Amino acid sequence: MLKDLIRTNRSTRRFHQEVAIEIHTLRELVELARLTPSAGNRQPLKFVLSCTPSTNDMVFKHLTWAVYLKDWGGPAEGERPSAYIIILGDKTIADTFGYDAGIAAQSILLGAVEKGLGGCIIAFVNRDKLRVAFELPDHLEILLVLALGKPAEKIVIEPLGADGKFEYWRDGEGVHHVPKRSLDELILKQF
Amino acid sequence: MLKDLIRTNRSTRRFHQEVAIEIHTLRELVELARLTPSAGNRQPLKFVLSCTPSTNDMVFKHLTWAVYLKDWGGPAEGERPSAYIIILGDKTIADTFGYDAGIAAQSILLGAVEKGLGGCIIAFVNRDKLRVAFELPDHLEILLVLALGKPAEKIVIEPLGADGKFEYWRDGEGVHHVPKRSLDELILKQF
Repeated sequence: MLKDLIRTNRSTRRFHQEVAIEIHTLRELVELARLTPSAGNRQPLKFVLSCTPSTNDMVFKHLTWAVYLKDWGGPAEGERPSAYIIILGDKTIADTFGYDAGIAAQSILLGAVEKGLGGCIIAFVNRDKLRVAFELPDHLEILLVLALGKPAEKIVIEPLGADGKFEYWRDGEGVHHVPKRSLDELILKQF
Repeated sequence: MLKDLIRTNRSTRRFHQEVAIEIHTLRELVELARLTPSAGNRQPLKFVLSCTPSTNDMVFKHLTWAVYLKDWGGPAEGERPSAYIIILGDKTIADTFGYDAGIAAQSILLGAVEKGLGGCIIAFVNRDKLRVAFELPDHLEILLVLALGKPAEKIVIEPLGADGKFEYWRDGEGVHHVPKRSLDELILKQF
């Protein structure tokens, strides 16, 4: 059921790095994105796929992880993602990319969860350095990086408290806690 | 399987208007959005739900449908959506809403497809008039409108041709054709 996939799809930042992801798996995930809605059907998104240790390292070094976890600089060697999908916007096709990358990213992540994988949408990227590393031409804007792997952390959703603190946090056992607003807080009006 | 849901989820613009959607169904769909990733976990999205004929009319009159179908002004009475979800961004929570609305919209539409419904993401909205009609306060930005209903049209995906024409079109039998770029065109590089 979709709700199970969506609930299981938590932003995951620690992985069983030894579990490889093959290129055909990444291609299957992009195929999901290919079939999603695109504003005006322009389909301006392009994708770079990485599942080799050397290119994974090239992506990893230009990412910033989990800004609210001040004492954690990101996954250590051994718990890093096994693959990445870089989502680009082709400026020769569209001037802006609106909601397309969000639609594509969610579709890819749900597809990953269905395959027993997990991941995280990362927007805090050193775009200039990533562009140089992968020799990306200027007409392709770097929108998002999706980190993918076999999840190796426990993540729990909990109600967002009266203090309004929405920042995720990690407890002494390493469990990652994510406060979520209630349904009634999200629904402004219903008719 | 997720791919079946994603493939079935085509942007649908003609519906069996007589098939009602109840408010609890819309709430279930927003619950899916509630559980999706949000940038920095801020969760700035708010939702207005409509499934009554009078409020549906209020939404409908402020939408522009299918810009590429020049001879079609939108669904006629009897084939209009049975419900709408208006997605808003709360500016007291975040300055920008980035990819959150795309992630939420895709999750809601996939949930609708799973329930035998379908819909369309509409960004071409008369926001000023919709704001007045629903008495939406200024701190809530209108991002997208999702039209929902029981689909009453046939939609086919086909390869995007060498002419590069990405505009969808409708044939003499009323079948809606959507040209999609190939997977190889979308994948810039793979490692």
